[in-house]
Formats: sequence, C-alpha cells, structure tokens
Amino acid sequence: MKFKAEIDIMPHDALLDPQGKAVQAGLQNLGLSGVDQVRVGKHITITLEAANETAAKAAVDEACKKLLANLIVERYHFEIAAV
Amino acid sequence: MKFKAEIDIMPHDALLDPQGKAVQAGLQNLGLSGVDQVRVGKHITITLEAANETAAKAAVDEACKKLLANLIVERYHFEIAAV
Repeated sequence: MKFKAEIDIMPHDALLDPQGKAVQAGLQNLGLSGVDQVRVGKHITITLEAANETAAKAAVDEACKKLLANLIVERYHFEIAAV
Repeated sequence: MKFKAEIDIMPHDALLDPQGKAVQAGLQNLGLSGVDQVRVGKHITITLEAANETAAKAAVDEACKKLLANLIVERYHFEIAAV
C-alpha cells in the first residue's frame, strides 16, 4: 500500500528562532501590525510504500529521528494517510 | 481575538525539488527503501491579533502572497484557529 506522510519539523518553543523574528519584522514592515509571534520550520511530504499503516508510521518515525529532524533543537509531528 | 495560523509552503508539483531528492537519497542510504517521493517546503506558524476569523484569514493570505511564498515556484496552504 502507498502512504503519504505530512511531516512538520519546528524549532523547540524554548529556543530563539531568528528566522521567525526576521519574518515577523518583515510582516510589520508590510503593515501587518497584529503579528505576535512567528516560527519557521520545515514541512516535508513523503510518499512511501509499506505493508500497513503501522509499518508506514514506524518508517516515517525512523526517518524523522535519524535524518530529518535534529531532536536537540527541533521537534517533529506527522500525519499519515493511505493514498 | 488571538488566532494561530499554520502555513505550509511547498514547491509546485511540476517543479524539481533538489532538496527533496537529496533527502530521498539519504533515506535510501539509511535503508528505508520504500520511499517514492520526498518534497521539502516550509512550515510557518504565526500568532496574530485580529477582530475576527475573516480578518485573520485575510491578513495571513496577504502575508503569504507578499512575503512568505514565492508564487512563481511555490504554493501555500494554511489553516487558522482561534487560541
């Protein structure tokens, strides 16, 4: 079966996010004054072949832990759906 | 009211995504062989103050169009919720 995973990788809330701060300043310069906080991370979609949803989840979890996210400074969250 | 927007910005499907290809090769090197396609984009969360959901949506849409996404090579999608 084919599955599609939508992964969000974001900097931990406790950490500074200079890219987010830069975007926030940019938005204020554009006149969008109500913006409180901006955080910038990665969004990754993976299409993969797996026997079932449990196997697909395990594969994506391994991919996040070993390659996609740096767990010292980032956290990840993903959702999987059959396609 | 405070709203939180979760924005995904991804390269258009028709375009090559070299970063995605690199991640795909990395995953295959890790032994995750079932991976078909990987695409890498940005995930941005914005917390903002707005009068109502319609105003918040309009502000986020403007932010995406004017600053966050390059509509020539990227598309964006967002969801808004009151916090």
